[in-house]
Amino acid sequence: MDFSLSPELVNLKEHTRKFVDDVVIPAESRVPKGVENWRELRDELQDAARDAGLFAPQLPKEYGGLGLNWRDCAVIFEEAGRSLLGPQALNCAAPDEGNMHMLEKIASPAQKEKYLRPLAQGEIRSCFSMTEPDGAGADPNNLKTRAELRDGKWVINGRKWFISGAVGASFTICMARTGDGGRGTGSGATMFLVDAENPGFRIVRQVPTLDVGWPGGHAEVEFVNCIVEEDSVLGAVGEGFEYAQVRLGPARLTHCMRWLGAARRAMEYAVKYARERESFGTTLSNHQGVQFMVADSEVEMHAARLMIWHAACLLDNGEKARHETSMAKVFVAETVNRVIDRAVQICGARGIAEDWQVAALYRENRAFRIYDGPSEVHRASIARRVFRRTIDDGRRTTRDA
Amino acid sequence: MDFSLSPELVNLKEHTRKFVDDVVIPAESRVPKGVENWRELRDELQDAARDAGLFAPQLPKEYGGLGLNWRDCAVIFEEAGRSLLGPQALNCAAPDEGNMHMLEKIASPAQKEKYLRPLAQGEIRSCFSMTEPDGAGADPNNLKTRAELRDGKWVINGRKWFISGAVGASFTICMARTGDGGRGTGSGATMFLVDAENPGFRIVRQVPTLDVGWPGGHAEVEFVNCIVEEDSVLGAVGEGFEYAQVRLGPARLTHCMRWLGAARRAMEYAVKYARERESFGTTLSNHQGVQFMVADSEVEMHAARLMIWHAACLLDNGEKARHETSMAKVFVAETVNRVIDRAVQICGARGIAEDWQVAALYRENRAFRIYDGPSEVHRASIARRVFRRTIDDGRRTTRDA
Amino acid sequence: MDFSLSPELVNLKEHTRKFVDDVVIPAESRVPKGVENWRELRDELQDAARDAGLFAPQLPKEYGGLGLNWRDCAVIFEEAGRSLLGPQALNCAAPDEGNMHMLEKIASPAQKEKYLRPLAQGEIRSCFSMTEPDGAGADPNNLKTRAELRDGKWVINGRKWFISGAVGASFTICMARTGDGGRGTGSGATMFLVDAENPGFRIVRQVPTLDVGWPGGHAEVEFVNCIVEEDSVLGAVGEGFEYAQVRLGPARLTHCMRWLGAARRAMEYAVKYARERESFGTTLSNHQGVQFMVADSEVEMHAARLMIWHAACLLDNGEKARHETSMAKVFVAETVNRVIDRAVQICGARGIAEDWQVAALYRENRAFRIYDGPSEVHRASIARRVFRRTIDDGRRTTRDA
Amino acid sequence: MDFSLSPELVNLKEHTRKFVDDVVIPAESRVPKGVENWRELRDELQDAARDAGLFAPQLPKEYGGLGLNWRDCAVIFEEAGRSLLGPQALNCAAPDEGNMHMLEKIASPAQKEKYLRPLAQGEIRSCFSMTEPDGAGADPNNLKTRAELRDGKWVINGRKWFISGAVGASFTICMARTGDGGRGTGSGATMFLVDAENPGFRIVRQVPTLDVGWPGGHAEVEFVNCIVEEDSVLGAVGEGFEYAQVRLGPARLTHCMRWLGAARRAMEYAVKYARERESFGTTLSNHQGVQFMVADSEVEMHAARLMIWHAACLLDNGEKARHETSMAKVFVAETVNRVIDRAVQICGARGIAEDWQVAALYRENRAFRIYDGPSEVHRASIARRVFRRTIDDGRRTTRDA
Repeated sequence: MDFSLSPELVNLKEHTRKFVDDVVIPAESRVPKGVENWRELRDELQDAARDAGLFAPQLPKEYGGLGLNWRDCAVIFEEAGRSLLGPQALNCAAPDEGNMHMLEKIASPAQKEKYLRPLAQGEIRSCFSMTEPDGAGADPNNLKTRAELRDGKWVINGRKWFISGAVGASFTICMARTGDGGRGTGSGATMFLVDAENPGFRIVRQVPTLDVGWPGGHAEVEFVNCIVEEDSVLGAVGEGFEYAQVRLGPARLTHCMRWLGAARRAMEYAVKYARERESFGTTLSNHQGVQFMVADSEVEMHAARLMIWHAACLLDNGEKARHETSMAKVFVAETVNRVIDRAVQICGARGIAEDWQVAALYRENRAFRIYDGPSEVHRASIARRVFRRTIDDGRRTTRDA
Repeated sequence: MDFSLSPELVNLKEHTRKFVDDVVIPAESRVPKGVENWRELRDELQDAARDAGLFAPQLPKEYGGLGLNWRDCAVIFEEAGRSLLGPQALNCAAPDEGNMHMLEKIASPAQKEKYLRPLAQGEIRSCFSMTEPDGAGADPNNLKTRAELRDGKWVINGRKWFISGAVGASFTICMARTGDGGRGTGSGATMFLVDAENPGFRIVRQVPTLDVGWPGGHAEVEFVNCIVEEDSVLGAVGEGFEYAQVRLGPARLTHCMRWLGAARRAMEYAVKYARERESFGTTLSNHQGVQFMVADSEVEMHAARLMIWHAACLLDNGEKARHETSMAKVFVAETVNRVIDRAVQICGARGIAEDWQVAALYRENRAFRIYDGPSEVHRASIARRVFRRTIDDGRRTTRDA
Repeated sequence: MDFSLSPELVNLKEHTRKFVDDVVIPAESRVPKGVENWRELRDELQDAARDAGLFAPQLPKEYGGLGLNWRDCAVIFEEAGRSLLGPQALNCAAPDEGNMHMLEKIASPAQKEKYLRPLAQGEIRSCFSMTEPDGAGADPNNLKTRAELRDGKWVINGRKWFISGAVGASFTICMARTGDGGRGTGSGATMFLVDAENPGFRIVRQVPTLDVGWPGGHAEVEFVNCIVEEDSVLGAVGEGFEYAQVRLGPARLTHCMRWLGAARRAMEYAVKYARERESFGTTLSNHQGVQFMVADSEVEMHAARLMIWHAACLLDNGEKARHETSMAKVFVAETVNRVIDRAVQICGARGIAEDWQVAALYRENRAFRIYDGPSEVHRASIARRVFRRTIDDGRRTTRDA
Repeated sequence: MDFSLSPELVNLKEHTRKFVDDVVIPAESRVPKGVENWRELRDELQDAARDAGLFAPQLPKEYGGLGLNWRDCAVIFEEAGRSLLGPQALNCAAPDEGNMHMLEKIASPAQKEKYLRPLAQGEIRSCFSMTEPDGAGADPNNLKTRAELRDGKWVINGRKWFISGAVGASFTICMARTGDGGRGTGSGATMFLVDAENPGFRIVRQVPTLDVGWPGGHAEVEFVNCIVEEDSVLGAVGEGFEYAQVRLGPARLTHCMRWLGAARRAMEYAVKYARERESFGTTLSNHQGVQFMVADSEVEMHAARLMIWHAACLLDNGEKARHETSMAKVFVAETVNRVIDRAVQICGARGIAEDWQVAALYRENRAFRIYDGPSEVHRASIARRVFRRTIDDGRRTTRDA
């Protein structure tokens, strides 16, 4: 048991922080209105990150990345997350980051060349077509989009929404039902690589959402007799639900890493303001009401960080760590919401005005308690695992062996 | 002790609900982008309200209102509040509603004719210039804007922000320091009626804010050698802080009334969705996790309503009811935030998408815990009152006599 | 709508408070160890209450009571509840108070003479045999105790526990299954009046519990071939579940009234201590952390009181008010727990030491969130009612007509 | 960064768990009434622990202990804490454990022989005289007990209370003011070793408290012209406040370790009961309301454990870790309270009955949020440290270097 970071990692962390402070945060005022015109800003920031030696920390070196393991990513992604633009700059933002991870694990060599390499280099963006307006969501087994094999080609039909980054993406990974596998079996779904220019793929509309800071927004898309070749299958036919877990386990943890950085940023505003603003004869920082909010945020972020680190270590050890990533997801998502909410409250009118990033963080972060499994679904899963294991087996939560 | 509503009030309530459902809610899709172009929609809705006999329920009949007392307003404002547009339609929205109340109490006959009458009729809008970027806020004694009497005219200098409704308002009520009254004495501030076309008054900018649904937005404004006549003083010189209380007591309670309606609206979405949406083999309404959120919202809204009614009765009895309106403000603001937050969570992606009003309510409502006194300031005041009264005097909280 | 109390009620309230302060609270130091030796203290306090004209406020005058309606009881029971001994003194403590109410509603004239009259006069105590160790509890349909009619006599067999007041009670009301009525039909259970000296009735043991302040404790009891005559049936055969509701509706509300008084008492200690105790250079009352706890308790008790009053008015109007008493039960029970917990925290070591009543209140009150339906069962019921009513029917929660 | 436990530690952990299950828990029914008659049971359990090779895990081998570092203690103390008797058995209970740690760090060789050695061997017990009825408490600078040097001897006068373990202790460590050191300077207090048979030391009374499971209870004691020799000074004169920190840092963390075990025990009851108890047609474990409580407890205990481990590593590295032990204290104390409270609620009547340990845990644990610094004092300290450090220094919370 050891919580220390290697000197190299500390250096990288400091370097990332400085990069975010010096390069990324100043660019926040230039975030484009609308979801479409991100290209220029994103390219500029990614070039800067490349120059700084910080590009794609999570990717293997053969794809131009830094080759960090998950525990190192935990530290660096948190730093990047202090700005909503940070993960864009480092090319470790959702949904590309999760897609890259899955492609690296599952894609064929040809698929890797075609999709992973340009994605890794930031040349293109991608999206992940999973959630459906009246189907797959918190319960993925509701999946209604179907793909059928006809004459050696797959024909996909279905409607998806909340497809983050869809506008401007070069391709999407589409989850479709390909069997009638019973509930919970996991069988019956397959993932497909679909090019954006496929005539059977259509962006129906940009869904207007509470969170507006995503390049490519959250679109509603349609697959209408969308025909793809057999070699567009990602991995094996019928393994879609399993692959979704391959993606989701780390993806929900990297979300936690990035959002923890965002919470820290909100706290920085709150702490700075509390030290400067005078009210009722002294600075806000001397009012216990404010102190307690700051203390709670400090304590909860500390706990959140440790839970992320712990789950990252398990992933590095080759475990699936579903219980631990699930626990981290619930705790971190709710902590980040609370921390940002408190920052709004401490900053008062300045927490409501969009001159600072606090209000934006409030707006952008709310969905984190819903995306990647609402807290309620995770809670039910966590409890079921607790009930399953023998009651005297306290070990499992911190994996002593 | 009696909680029943008169048959007339029940009728008016039903009528208001139907008006909101049939006329106001369908207009929500036409809310203008930006803060400036509200005139047409507002006029149309106010005409409809007038035709429906629902216009200005809180105003005396001589000003074209329905002459309701506060307890009746509590019922009707809640109904109106189910849509963010409802209070606009009924001309009982902040800040006009509070300004009208204060003008009616304090203004001279000539001021009433010039300002109150057209305001009451919905012909013009107004704003209230109190909050300052680095001065008056949660602690009004930080007031920095000053007015000096020179050669029989008042000259106002200062900067204000978060002046709701400023863009498009015909006049503002400006709070300025006119003496050097010590802290807490209340002396030393005066309210002035300033026409929007006064050359010394300037809208510096529209402050971008988390809440975007206000006609006229929240502006930053400036008074630079702004000259007004002596008859522009509202009430008496030096009584500004007292008048602010005259305005704030009921104003914070009418906020509660309207926002409680908004919370109910969010609940309506959540309840409807929970009854229809299938997940994990049954409707959401059969998941205890959802049930408990609904139950908590139901219970807290019930408590919130009773606290509003109680404080309204005290106001009707001529009491200042600072303790009770303060308690209502804290409880209702936090309840409304929780209820809307739960509605977002229950609705999932549909709580994030702006197709429904849930996301908008989430965005618009956050500031309610800050405006009209942050929860923290109210909590401190409530406690101080508790410590002041004799400890065995449980009576005071529900005023038995 | 009107929240005022009549001058007569205000007088009675003041009188009750003074009686509790002068007579009841000084007797707290004489609470007997163990559950059995309450007789002397109880008789003494009841005599004093009789002399003070405060005895049995909830009972009709023909039974020696004050004949108060529920809304008046709400005020007086709260005052009595300031001491755990108060309801004993006024003969309005559970379970006798609920039993008396049910007997008055359902019992035959002969049963009233035999059981209600001496109970009303405080000559005897009673208990209510409902909860079973592995049967009826939060879900009353689990009822396992059975009664069979053999040769014109009922033979009861079954085991009950948490039978409050059993030790020293003269009789019990026993709930037993008398049919095989399907779940939720309500049919199939009957209430029986069983004398304590019945040889088929046995106190198995005094269950050791967290709460120790009940005369007669919480016993485990057994009915073994317990034979009672047909005229021992309370009300009609097969109506037991309906009668349980007759008892539980008001009984859970009177619990709320009494416990609210207990919360107030805890607050009185906390407020007094906070004003006197110096820490970190000033009194605790000047620390915002303490202020906020006091404010939250003040606000929540205020809301709790209004919910009780509201539900009491509905009961007085002849409504069953299941939704409203259920909401009150959840909110008040949890509020009282929070208020007492905060009082412990504010009083510090003095909240842990049993020199003051704060620790006792903490210990005694915990079960209130479980007795008479755990919060979870009430929440589920509340939600089901919300889902059942039409979604636009906001009216119901405050019954406008 | 590494969260794994060594195979040796895993073995020791398993061994401890088995010892607690097989030896300690069965002894719980034999806990003596009253605070005085613990000797026999304690000796028996300590002998068993000695035989099992588990005695005094935290002590150096030269004193008969296992010589574990803090991070290993974190694992073993948690296991021991599953029973309130566990730390007694292993001789790692408060206040002896903290006293032994301090003696080992500060005492002279002679003092170690006289006091530490028999304490380490479980032959005697001790207590720590710090808290005062109207003086030192949450704010230690309120210290009123004074010691004066007269003719080469120290004369101590003062009153203390909540002196845990005093009845039956062989000696106490007494904190007394020996200078007039200004507030916060830390100077001015000295620690003295006082034998119980010193005629100037008197146990005034056993304070009746909510928690009753301590050998020796919590006494009120008096020092009246209590004369001790100069070699009774522990460490140096005037360094008392510094030494108190030496004691409190680890002591509050070992409290966390033990109590976390207690929370786990409560959870074990709740999980087992929820899997077995049927209600509303299924087991409690299938009700989401219960699932969510279990999930929250699981998540929070996991976070609590990681915070303890992290702070223990810092202590092992020689850091004072005040910020981290303070954060752990607040979070763990409140988590343990919540976990136990949820266990009571899930177990319903069985959580109130003292047949199981759940009710006892509820009663015993409440004070943990007050002892060793109330949560409020820790929150204020945590916030002050946050305000002191530079705002961009997110590092400190997890000490990367």
